[in-house]
Amino acid sequence: MVQPSPSYTVALRLEVPASQKSVARLVDTATVTGAIVNGVDVADADGDRLIVDLTADTRDSAHRAALVTALEEIDGVKVRHVGDSTFLAHVGGKLEIAPRTPIHNRRDLARVYTPGVARVCKAIHDHPERARQLTIKKNTVAVVTDGTAVLGLGDIGPAAAMPVMEGKAVLFKQFGGVDAWPVALDTTDPEEIIAIVKAIAPAYGGINLEDIAAPKCFDIEARLREELDIPVFHDDQHGTAIVTLAALINALKVVGKSIEEVRIVLSGVGAAGNAIAKLLMAHGATDIVGYGRDGALSAEHTDGMNSHRKWLAENTNPRRVTGSLKEGLVGADVFIGVSSGNLLEPADLSVMAPDAIVFAMANPTPEVDPIGAADYAAVVATGRSDFPNQINNVLAFPGLFRGLLDTGITDISVELLRAAATGIAGVIDAGELSPVHIIPNAFDTRVADAVASAVRRLAEAV
Amino acid sequence: MVQPSPSYTVALRLEVPASQKSVARLVDTATVTGAIVNGVDVADADGDRLIVDLTADTRDSAHRAALVTALEEIDGVKVRHVGDSTFLAHVGGKLEIAPRTPIHNRRDLARVYTPGVARVCKAIHDHPERARQLTIKKNTVAVVTDGTAVLGLGDIGPAAAMPVMEGKAVLFKQFGGVDAWPVALDTTDPEEIIAIVKAIAPAYGGINLEDIAAPKCFDIEARLREELDIPVFHDDQHGTAIVTLAALINALKVVGKSIEEVRIVLSGVGAAGNAIAKLLMAHGATDIVGYGRDGALSAEHTDGMNSHRKWLAENTNPRRVTGSLKEGLVGADVFIGVSSGNLLEPADLSVMAPDAIVFAMANPTPEVDPIGAADYAAVVATGRSDFPNQINNVLAFPGLFRGLLDTGITDISVELLRAAATGIAGVIDAGELSPVHIIPNAFDTRVADAVASAVRRLAEAV
Repeated sequence: MVQPSPSYTVALRLEVPASQKSVARLVDTATVTGAIVNGVDVADADGDRLIVDLTADTRDSAHRAALVTALEEIDGVKVRHVGDSTFLAHVGGKLEIAPRTPIHNRRDLARVYTPGVARVCKAIHDHPERARQLTIKKNTVAVVTDGTAVLGLGDIGPAAAMPVMEGKAVLFKQFGGVDAWPVALDTTDPEEIIAIVKAIAPAYGGINLEDIAAPKCFDIEARLREELDIPVFHDDQHGTAIVTLAALINALKVVGKSIEEVRIVLSGVGAAGNAIAKLLMAHGATDIVGYGRDGALSAEHTDGMNSHRKWLAENTNPRRVTGSLKEGLVGADVFIGVSSGNLLEPADLSVMAPDAIVFAMANPTPEVDPIGAADYAAVVATGRSDFPNQINNVLAFPGLFRGLLDTGITDISVELLRAAATGIAGVIDAGELSPVHIIPNAFDTRVADAVASAVRRLAEAV
Repeated sequence: MVQPSPSYTVALRLEVPASQKSVARLVDTATVTGAIVNGVDVADADGDRLIVDLTADTRDSAHRAALVTALEEIDGVKVRHVGDSTFLAHVGGKLEIAPRTPIHNRRDLARVYTPGVARVCKAIHDHPERARQLTIKKNTVAVVTDGTAVLGLGDIGPAAAMPVMEGKAVLFKQFGGVDAWPVALDTTDPEEIIAIVKAIAPAYGGINLEDIAAPKCFDIEARLREELDIPVFHDDQHGTAIVTLAALINALKVVGKSIEEVRIVLSGVGAAGNAIAKLLMAHGATDIVGYGRDGALSAEHTDGMNSHRKWLAENTNPRRVTGSLKEGLVGADVFIGVSSGNLLEPADLSVMAPDAIVFAMANPTPEVDPIGAADYAAVVATGRSDFPNQINNVLAFPGLFRGLLDTGITDISVELLRAAATGIAGVIDAGELSPVHIIPNAFDTRVADAVASAVRRLAEAV
């Protein structure tokens, strides 16, 4: 059953009789409904009545309604207002644009705007490379989406994708010091998306493609990499691949196996699966079998496949395995899921090799229940924050772009992705490493520095 | 002769003998070259040597070089570093993106990003109008340029235009509390610009077109107004027209004439001139004659004109005046210049009607020297900050967009522009009004509020 969570926190304003007991009864009643009370504050006292603000985590909107009803049924209690903390956190948007060079007087104005600014414009016109020094380009990344593959929500369009892009920009700034700006495009045409990103590029030092449906995301990325002189990163591919490799490096240490020897089952052959397979192979993996909805991809059956799926079929599965995902688990050392929820029962994992590693990263519902999976696997990881070992892209993109912007590296090469993954894995030292701690948590401040440093070392080595 | 200005401030680090006299000699020497010394700070003292930071306004780079040479020639003085304050103010760009909802812990992350954000996305998908409440859209404006008509610099391209767009965004925030983002496009094709602005529109509550060459700027603006559901403002037209009308309203008060009766000579029939003519006529002007490079526009000669110039030719010049700009000045009450520098000698104004009004707004060099013009005109205004009566667009756009975003008005109507102009003019009360004070200065904090209030009153009146 879903647990109450901070993503569904209710903020209630209540009117209650002024007594210790009546406030205590609020908390009791909320707890009985299964809500987790975060806090109770008296906002105002008016004679024999108190105004009380109560915030509590709930499971969903039905639970929230049940909580409100239960509180209303207490004698003397009136519910004045029901707020949703998640929505409250979004009112007015999550970003603002702040002047780095404020204008307080005419002297400032003459420098930062006309007439002084004209000399800076002219300097950039005469020496285009100075744009990186004299404009926001050096520290600014576009987070580009068309809203066609947003989180688990699918094709919800650009306006509805904005809260995710804004959230991403907040993470870029807080973890990497990178200024990221949401570019949510009201077109789903790949050629138009390519043309637009190229046209807006002068202001940006990098492009982060986000939540664009496969397979067009591959083409958009490939074309932009070729036609732009700034790095083009596709978080759903590259970010996920980096963090998966980082987790796998450490999980293999825990079980004492080597990447060259393990059999890897990959469930999901979209953007993420494709990128994961490529990066794992570059890091030494030799035996990956990819599974789509119709079973194992194999070089013997590539009719009608798009080029990316075909690449996987032709370059993985060296043993020419056929059949279903469940059949493929027999003897496998590693399961990596970037597909959809509840594909497997925990007991399906019993056929895996001893000391199995299971990364069930579908969100919000993993491919297999992670608590049940722990009965059969030595290491279990998910994409969720409420289980150990969260494989979270936020570990990769802020530090990676910090490094890219600082060094001027433009090519998102396999070496770069490996360096980033090794950087993340290295944050967990031998003493910290355990089956429930293969990867740093999202708030580990060492991570972004480790990734940025790995990128800088790569730049120095070139 | 050009005066030393804060747009050309030099920051020098000097090594001098440790004595009161040697520091005094620095200032003397700098002053003799014509530089205006802003400050002298001792940064470090090392035995018998001082490290001194001297900042001084200069006229241009030749003056700066002369200053450095003069200082180097003083016995015992070494110039260690020459910095340019304008460039220093631009290093790293002038904007940053700040989280309005910081993420400090897992609870914040769950609300602001996954999984909580998904509910907000879904709410916008189900109710698109909620984007205005739950994303940055409500307070965010795109400052769009293709870099084809930047300040007095012309077609310098999008990268070199960025410092102007960033400066504009700083002004939007500081004066109007509006979050503005530079969109500098690497295309000059009107159809592409239209398609791109439409595609990026989901993130924005308004569009500010900036420094796009005429006549295509007219078409781009007209199409976007028709095809978008957010306000589309062209600062070079609308902003300039608002501030010009505001200044004219007050200048006419000073000389005791009425807009319906004055003869107006308009030098410059590009984007700004066109918009000024339309707005002045909407406010009651009846006798405007527009002058291009070939003289007066008149309905009798419209062959080969683009539609905007043709509109002017057909709708202004009721007396069918022909001939040159200088001939047109005979008996004119008002000269408005949005053309180019030094078109006229001050004495050319002697033929104007008594109590003439002269707005010489070409930048950086006005159509006529404003000091000389004051011998012939009762009121003189320019676009420059170093003369009285600066007609500066910053008086209009921050407050106007503040009002537009707050009210949801989408149509940039003539009534709206008149309301804004009247709002600006009204900031100067009868006691403050004088020939050298017809318009508030750029730092008058009453202005943005007055303009936003005028927009709000208009919204309430509808």
